[in-house]
Amino acid sequence: MENIKTYIQEHKDRFINELIELLKIPSVSADTAYAQDVIATSEAVKTSLKKAGCDHVEICDTPGYPIVYAEKIIDPALPTVLVYGHYDVQPPNPIELWTSPPFEPVIKKTEIHPEGAIFARGSCDDKGQMYMHIKALEYMVQSNTLPCNVKFMIEGEEEVGSKSLSWFVTRNQEKLSCDVILISDTGMISNQQPSITTGLRGLSYVEVEVTGPNRDLHSGLYGGAVANPINVLTKMIASLHDENNHITIPSFYDNVTELSLEERAEMAKAPFSLEAYKKALDLNDIYGEKGYTTNERNSIRPTLDVNGIWGGYTGEGAKTVIPSQAFAKISMRLVPNQDWEAITTLFTQHFISIAPAGVKVKVKPHHGGQGYVTPIDSIGYKAANKAYTETFGVPAIPVRSGGSIPIVALFEKELKSKTILMGFGLDSDAIHSPNEHFGIFNYLKGIETIPLFYKYFVELSK
Amino acid sequence: MENIKTYIQEHKDRFINELIELLKIPSVSADTAYAQDVIATSEAVKTSLKKAGCDHVEICDTPGYPIVYAEKIIDPALPTVLVYGHYDVQPPNPIELWTSPPFEPVIKKTEIHPEGAIFARGSCDDKGQMYMHIKALEYMVQSNTLPCNVKFMIEGEEEVGSKSLSWFVTRNQEKLSCDVILISDTGMISNQQPSITTGLRGLSYVEVEVTGPNRDLHSGLYGGAVANPINVLTKMIASLHDENNHITIPSFYDNVTELSLEERAEMAKAPFSLEAYKKALDLNDIYGEKGYTTNERNSIRPTLDVNGIWGGYTGEGAKTVIPSQAFAKISMRLVPNQDWEAITTLFTQHFISIAPAGVKVKVKPHHGGQGYVTPIDSIGYKAANKAYTETFGVPAIPVRSGGSIPIVALFEKELKSKTILMGFGLDSDAIHSPNEHFGIFNYLKGIETIPLFYKYFVELSK
Repeated sequence: MENIKTYIQEHKDRFINELIELLKIPSVSADTAYAQDVIATSEAVKTSLKKAGCDHVEICDTPGYPIVYAEKIIDPALPTVLVYGHYDVQPPNPIELWTSPPFEPVIKKTEIHPEGAIFARGSCDDKGQMYMHIKALEYMVQSNTLPCNVKFMIEGEEEVGSKSLSWFVTRNQEKLSCDVILISDTGMISNQQPSITTGLRGLSYVEVEVTGPNRDLHSGLYGGAVANPINVLTKMIASLHDENNHITIPSFYDNVTELSLEERAEMAKAPFSLEAYKKALDLNDIYGEKGYTTNERNSIRPTLDVNGIWGGYTGEGAKTVIPSQAFAKISMRLVPNQDWEAITTLFTQHFISIAPAGVKVKVKPHHGGQGYVTPIDSIGYKAANKAYTETFGVPAIPVRSGGSIPIVALFEKELKSKTILMGFGLDSDAIHSPNEHFGIFNYLKGIETIPLFYKYFVELSK
Repeated sequence: MENIKTYIQEHKDRFINELIELLKIPSVSADTAYAQDVIATSEAVKTSLKKAGCDHVEICDTPGYPIVYAEKIIDPALPTVLVYGHYDVQPPNPIELWTSPPFEPVIKKTEIHPEGAIFARGSCDDKGQMYMHIKALEYMVQSNTLPCNVKFMIEGEEEVGSKSLSWFVTRNQEKLSCDVILISDTGMISNQQPSITTGLRGLSYVEVEVTGPNRDLHSGLYGGAVANPINVLTKMIASLHDENNHITIPSFYDNVTELSLEERAEMAKAPFSLEAYKKALDLNDIYGEKGYTTNERNSIRPTLDVNGIWGGYTGEGAKTVIPSQAFAKISMRLVPNQDWEAITTLFTQHFISIAPAGVKVKVKPHHGGQGYVTPIDSIGYKAANKAYTETFGVPAIPVRSGGSIPIVALFEKELKSKTILMGFGLDSDAIHSPNEHFGIFNYLKGIETIPLFYKYFVELSK
């Protein structure tokens, strides 16, 4: 399959330009103001899949944003790979921190990406990583080297909880039947050291509302005599962690599997520099749950983070107001065995129970998903590792990630297939942040590596 | 002085319409977007003072918004009353909670105001109450009953800390020399029970900024391993009160004068229904410092309230972000003897000291002012009480208010004059809140009562 390198060299500029066009459409699923753009992106993905050589391509309606489904079935007797990705992106704000507009992609060189990186919202998460699979298919079709059947399922609600995807998957088990699910929506250790994500955290995302007096009050006339919803909210949130940064919600840790000392020792072998980590984030110190290292805190331990908070006067200058209401968006990252719906219930009950009598509290669940661990002795894992080894020159390291792709657990349950998380992004790519980018090296390396996965997956399946 | 009632009846509609025109100009001093409107309001006030009969009227430039100064000196040997008021208003937000636009005044009847009230930002605080003085002067000039000299000083930065006013007062002590300062920027108990504010709280207003990582981070990849500025901010704010709602800043209470049991018993005689209070605010329970009643908590005790908080994703839907920064606006109401600058320093030192190493903290002082207590045996207090007694039929009750008019302490220091706080608003007028209003009854009653103050002040001064 030496040909792929030549093919990439020849078509490189087109590959980059096609991705840039896709990145120009602001498919922000969290904000209904962008609804038409999200729809437009699904159409663009459909067109790309058709052009790449899929025989059947369709836009599948759902209760939410559509799912793009495509397939190329060359022989029903051969294995089938189901590629999953998403065409929606995170909101771009805070927009003022972008050095170039989030939906006007530009290529800039960085220390880590001397060959350049595409800066745009969604460049890495997940338009860029998803589009690698479409270009890899194009190559296999053009070179007549596709060794098996392939199905694509590209959704538009990953950043807001994949509600319609689970609706779709449960209704289309036969259509989606496959031997392995392949996803590029994670990262790897570095451009010199590939890695395969073997564990993901689950997620429970809620929004809380604290209401005090029925109207905003003058803080001079009422201050000190009524519960200030902001003061109360800060007290309630603060109480959710104890002095060791353990989460205080009763029964929260009941189903958390503690890793053995051996497993933790194995994890500790992954290359990691605390000094470099602190320097990259401009931190004087790290912070987290007592008794765990940084890499344990962000992968094998559950967390509770406030993702947004607001209330009262937030404009220029000063306003002496006691607001009627205060709000927060809170998410909990969960580990395998913690059921996200059970945790959402535990949170809700606890949060309401700690409210003082002077306020009213509402908890609104947003979305969630289960954590996941995949074995490293599966055919899919081995095929991915062989592919990485061939293109990078070194084997991939298995790592547990702190992020969540809730649908991985769903796929295992509904489609009875294992998922392989072949990521090509880097932690420093600033996904979900201003100035998200994706290395040209990573993009092209992905396109080069993916066909090898197909090859080895079919070989090892024989 | 029976004539005043007739005069008010004859000119009532014009008095109301003139105030309505003034209320249409959105003079929000906290937001620079309204700068031209603030300036326009100063011009409108100047014109009103000229028309009312002042001999000399000028717009005095300051480092901030201008101060309108006016005077009518009939005989240097007679006493001089200095009227203070402000033409700026609070920001109108949250604008969606107004039942009519804040700068399109309308008259609506309410349970408390069966004769109607003018709904608009600034109607009570302080355009309406300030304009009563201009109309009272008009009457005294027209009826040739002005018994003394009068000076007006109307500023445009009261809602943002009166910085330029103190600049102006310290530079114009001779120009502003007077025998008493008269202000209507407070409330009274009810339309049946007038009261005179004898005590005010001081204020220290600060803005805090907590910075964690140098950019927004994905809460999956980093959650649990770095200090989340919002979580940290909530913990820091929560720690500022203990379990009895005492403020925990070291030395905060050092200069607080504890009232004697006798004084507290005297205060407790003021009419107050806790049930009605809770019902009016739709509260299941009150909340505050242990060991004090509601009326003590909001007048003789210092407080610490968060007036605004923001950080992270606050838009529609969900975003799994650990923000780089979180912010809050915090104000402390102070009692006489607490020095606001010393308290601002104590807060700043303490707040920085409680920050964990994983974040950086900045505290930016906004503004502040000293508390104040006035004696009830002064000529000014007696004159005001006689005026109220004549127009309301019952004597005024002296009350301590929880609000702050920081310039009252400044006036005493720089002008060596006592201030009389003759308020005609009601607590239910929703100042600083959506749907601020000012009763027609209160507006006209103020115009009727003020000339009597002048009369009795001159009589008692002889």
